[in-house]
Amino acid sequence: MKITAVDVEDVRFPTSLTADGSDAMNKDGDYSAAYVVLRTDGTDADGAPLAGYGLTFTTGRGNDIVGIAARQQAALLVGRDVEEMVADMGGVYRDLTADAQMRWLGPEKGVVHLSLSAVMNAAWDLAGRVAGKPVWRLLADMTPEQLVDVADLRYLSDALTRDEAIALLRAQEGGKAERIAELERTGYPCYTTSAGWLGYSDEKLRRLCQEAVDEGYQHIKLKVGADLEEDVRRCGIARDVIGPDRALMIDANQVWDVDQAIEWTNALARFDLLWIEEPTSPDDVLGHAAIRRGVAPVGVATGEHGHNRVMFKQFMQAGAMDYCQLDAGRLASLNEIVAVLLLAAKFGVKVCPHGGGVGLCEMVQHISMLDFVAVSGSREGRVTEYVDHLHEHFTDPCVVREAAYVLPSRPGYSTQMHEASVAEFRFPDGAYWAGRLASA
Amino acid sequence: MKITAVDVEDVRFPTSLTADGSDAMNKDGDYSAAYVVLRTDGTDADGAPLAGYGLTFTTGRGNDIVGIAARQQAALLVGRDVEEMVADMGGVYRDLTADAQMRWLGPEKGVVHLSLSAVMNAAWDLAGRVAGKPVWRLLADMTPEQLVDVADLRYLSDALTRDEAIALLRAQEGGKAERIAELERTGYPCYTTSAGWLGYSDEKLRRLCQEAVDEGYQHIKLKVGADLEEDVRRCGIARDVIGPDRALMIDANQVWDVDQAIEWTNALARFDLLWIEEPTSPDDVLGHAAIRRGVAPVGVATGEHGHNRVMFKQFMQAGAMDYCQLDAGRLASLNEIVAVLLLAAKFGVKVCPHGGGVGLCEMVQHISMLDFVAVSGSREGRVTEYVDHLHEHFTDPCVVREAAYVLPSRPGYSTQMHEASVAEFRFPDGAYWAGRLASA
Repeated sequence: MKITAVDVEDVRFPTSLTADGSDAMNKDGDYSAAYVVLRTDGTDADGAPLAGYGLTFTTGRGNDIVGIAARQQAALLVGRDVEEMVADMGGVYRDLTADAQMRWLGPEKGVVHLSLSAVMNAAWDLAGRVAGKPVWRLLADMTPEQLVDVADLRYLSDALTRDEAIALLRAQEGGKAERIAELERTGYPCYTTSAGWLGYSDEKLRRLCQEAVDEGYQHIKLKVGADLEEDVRRCGIARDVIGPDRALMIDANQVWDVDQAIEWTNALARFDLLWIEEPTSPDDVLGHAAIRRGVAPVGVATGEHGHNRVMFKQFMQAGAMDYCQLDAGRLASLNEIVAVLLLAAKFGVKVCPHGGGVGLCEMVQHISMLDFVAVSGSREGRVTEYVDHLHEHFTDPCVVREAAYVLPSRPGYSTQMHEASVAEFRFPDGAYWAGRLASA
Repeated sequence: MKITAVDVEDVRFPTSLTADGSDAMNKDGDYSAAYVVLRTDGTDADGAPLAGYGLTFTTGRGNDIVGIAARQQAALLVGRDVEEMVADMGGVYRDLTADAQMRWLGPEKGVVHLSLSAVMNAAWDLAGRVAGKPVWRLLADMTPEQLVDVADLRYLSDALTRDEAIALLRAQEGGKAERIAELERTGYPCYTTSAGWLGYSDEKLRRLCQEAVDEGYQHIKLKVGADLEEDVRRCGIARDVIGPDRALMIDANQVWDVDQAIEWTNALARFDLLWIEEPTSPDDVLGHAAIRRGVAPVGVATGEHGHNRVMFKQFMQAGAMDYCQLDAGRLASLNEIVAVLLLAAKFGVKVCPHGGGVGLCEMVQHISMLDFVAVSGSREGRVTEYVDHLHEHFTDPCVVREAAYVLPSRPGYSTQMHEASVAEFRFPDGAYWAGRLASA
């Protein structure tokens, strides 16, 4: 079986019309996916054509640029033998990252890393389908040596050696079956950000917080950072609705300088905050470390813009994060994510992946399950983001029940979109956009 | 006078044919420029059409991707009044960086930051031409307040406040005229990397080192990192030719992990090295700090892949660099570079910008001159990179005399290419590439 072709689609959903997803830094995004399909000449167990489906998330314009980069990178996979590829995913990843000319455009960051993520996410989805397993299970079933071979440990050896990584995984082997059974019973806890976007009215905020409580959520997150007085009012509303026992988190989406982040967070600390998320530039390791010292006992959460494993290594070495919010479309797929999970396990940092956007929830459920089953062995104090929109476009959408992700069971990475969704929202020629552009 | 149009060209020079530019990480690059021309409806003093010319440097494939991003960003400038724009370059920069959707693709890193650099470099070239001044002089003639308004100080206030920046500049105001006169007499010292590429034979290395000595260079830099025995032999040859009094630097182009960097550098330290350049991942602030402690008295130089001012802030806060090798096409133009010069002046780090590539030497001469005249006020211990190739494609190429850059005197940023060069090397339809692709 060979990879015969690559399709890359620019899919954009018009979320800017409803202010879903608005925050202090991002005001008018159309949630979008650079969507990669690796076609093969094989078929699945049902005789349907076998393909791998992957994506990265962007907020609209520029999604085309990521797609062009993905097309150039994915071209290296066409003609490859699928069985050989899925048996050596670490090697495939290294081949794609070894391209010196694309590397110059990062290295390992920005557009070429987002696009690499989309391509490798599709390769992982294909690997899961070939194995007949959900991706979390494909990885959890690996031996410690196999899983470490998948992980990109380059530049990490001063913090985590290969031997240490294997030892960490070996220590969790015994309890795997029990933890899988536990996930089958109770899923993986999540929290909702759907209540707290900046563009919503107080009334809508109150209503959405109450709905979240009614649905069983133990954590609520609000966007902050545009206006302190408004933030005080909105945090007050949220705390009032959720009561004293549930957790309240705030998210500033990078709007502050370091000292301002400390002052603003401390001004809201009376609402008993679990964490402040993205208080400043996502590149500022030392700044986050200073903020963490300055706002304790409020925790520091960051990572959705953490552009590669070297940044996460430093955040952990510097004591700059309590909660690691890695992003499944910004890190270059599970090859890099497994490395970050291993670092987090070593440093005792809680992994609470970034959800939302398009398809991120579909992917992060696999990551959190894998972390619990095979890497950290713990759900204690961890909670994975969930945002309730755009799931209807996926063929195997994530399912949340009683404020927990249900363990994915279908083969792959849950990242296949309905063909009808792609046809409608492909930019600029899908039915939705063609109609809107014609009437503009 | 208005900006009427933007042209973006994908210009690639076939440097991979001669192994110019080969190093341990980058083996087959074609030195390229994403080249931006901002057209206006005005004319210069000679009655010729007035335009601004800017670029960023890449190593080949992917240059098209940067060009597409530049086209989207530069579109925001079309229709703008030129006089208003050049009077508020800080505002123009903020407008272009405020685009939330392009920001998501970085933020402030990778393709969208490289492309922003090309666009703003063209805007700065235009500003210099409008003022009838070389860009270094345009900036050096500003008041401290004006220059600080140009600088992007966002996320830096924990290390450098606006007031501190103004005070730093004010302290250098008195000596400006004298330092300009000094630059007119002796230029700005540079070193050559042309001798030490990995692809060259020992014989060629020896000959090129001798030529550099004969031309008056006091510093020679070699690429290292592929093979320790070979590095020992090549450093031995270089030290033998240049004698004990000239400086020898080595450049590993990011190939090592942290501990390996310390061991390898110390294994070469007997050749009396001034600096080790890019020993590991350019993102690894804490790793560089560890390396700096581990290889002293060999200095640590890095920055050509330093993707924004927040990274440089941390390198300086952490004591991770002795020499700041900022890149004129990777930082988002002089708006961000002035901020880094200010940080370096505060922390006492020596700015030795990254030269080479396409057009980088043309730009960095302006930066080093500006740093000496208006910011740090010193050339002590500083030396700017010079690589002797591809200058023939520029209408106002940098001039090096007695191992020093000659002070640029013509208006603009020295980044205009000959139209014939663009016509020949435009990819894929320029005469050179069309011919090569036809005969392939």
